Amino acid sequence: MTKAQLFEQILRKRSFLCVGLDTVGDDVFEFNKRIIDATHQYAVAYKPNLAFYEGRWEEFGRTCAYIRENHPEMLIIADAKRGDIGNTSEMYARAFARVADAVTVAPYMGRDSVEPFLSHVDWAVVLALTSNPSADDFETLRLESGEFLWQRVLETAKTWGSADNMMFVVGATRAETLEEVRKIVPDHFLLVPGVGAQGGSLEDVAKYGMNGECGLLVNSSRGVIYASDPAAEARSLAEQMGALMDRFLK
Amino acid sequence: MTKAQLFEQILRKRSFLCVGLDTVGDDVFEFNKRIIDATHQYAVAYKPNLAFYEGRWEEFGRTCAYIRENHPEMLIIADAKRGDIGNTSEMYARAFARVADAVTVAPYMGRDSVEPFLSHVDWAVVLALTSNPSADDFETLRLESGEFLWQRVLETAKTWGSADNMMFVVGATRAETLEEVRKIVPDHFLLVPGVGAQGGSLEDVAKYGMNGECGLLVNSSRGVIYASDPAAEARSLAEQMGALMDRFLK
Repeated sequence: MTKAQLFEQILRKRSFLCVGLDTVGDDVFEFNKRIIDATHQYAVAYKPNLAFYEGRWEEFGRTCAYIRENHPEMLIIADAKRGDIGNTSEMYARAFARVADAVTVAPYMGRDSVEPFLSHVDWAVVLALTSNPSADDFETLRLESGEFLWQRVLETAKTWGSADNMMFVVGATRAETLEEVRKIVPDHFLLVPGVGAQGGSLEDVAKYGMNGECGLLVNSSRGVIYASDPAAEARSLAEQMGALMDRFLK
Repeated sequence: MTKAQLFEQILRKRSFLCVGLDTVGDDVFEFNKRIIDATHQYAVAYKPNLAFYEGRWEEFGRTCAYIRENHPEMLIIADAKRGDIGNTSEMYARAFARVADAVTVAPYMGRDSVEPFLSHVDWAVVLALTSNPSADDFETLRLESGEFLWQRVLETAKTWGSADNMMFVVGATRAETLEEVRKIVPDHFLLVPGVGAQGGSLEDVAKYGMNGECGLLVNSSRGVIYASDPAAEARSLAEQMGALMDRFLK
């Protein structure tokens, strides 16, 4: 899926919601199917986190295939946070290319660990500034050059691809930092976890992070899939997002 | 497996060889079985890289189960380079705990991404300084404090666990750096890839990296498993390792 196609879908649905399929329990595929059927008109992307499918690739694969077949407009993000030396990363990239449009990747090992994903899937989604408390252990370290590590990751990684094949993960718990992020990557899509359960503000994310093509995918996992009424929860998020698009889409 | 048990095995076999089961092609389990039967007396650990098993967990699981059942003295390292926010990393850790003794983990997201592995498997093996060329993109950046990022990773990560439940990945292509690594983590085991195909020197690794309990697991993947005679290749490496233990074991 291209960036233009993604933006077109966002405009049509008035939503930049990504639903995280972090599904536990038995019968994961049937659960996911129900969630997908209930939420697809309010969302533009699904993001199964591979931690919930380790050793259960079949359920992950069936879920992706179901989305592809029944809701082909949706972006499928394999939230795998993979990364290895080049020829090994390529093995990961080829495996995910069979089922997903995008894969999240960890930047620590540098360029050759990320490039194979750019070649094999539509989007490599590089971790930059994550939403967890211990992001401060390394991501926010200040370098000799004066930058924070996450800033250098953005600056370096953006040279490996383009805004048409790379996105970045930036947590909603650091919404004010999105203004700084946008100085480095004005045109890239950002995948933003951490709204809801982790305390991030959707309004702040839109205010500081939205660009002229929206440029945001805001993820909700448990908040949607384990809501008493997932469709109502997704619709409510989409309504908020549509209103924020009216205010902040430049 | 405890550190004492690992060292005891190293002394008995006079080897600190880890064989990387980076197996491609059909019938992966049968191939692995042959490699394991041919090499176990010359090695102390097996390390399937999960990139080669993405979507093929059954073959990974069968391989680990075969090792457990037939060669229970071997350390099984799931080279997965995983890492996610805490409760999600725990899903990974629980899945790997069913089949492996150790898991490699990426440090970028910090403490909460690594800790679940310390709770669920015997060993978390944290990436510090990897053997790939683009390790220089981020790992060797100099911080405001004067350290390199990889030094800070060692210093910070070692406080999350101990030398009895944490190891570090340090590439053999940077053997001279092992002296610096040992100043920070004198007692931890190091998992060292990059000897052979990637050009690292086994003698330098032993000279700069060995400690009083050996403290080294040197990995060879393709160099062993795709050798014309894997047993002979593993034996040759073990013989070199035994000789290096005579010289450098303190």
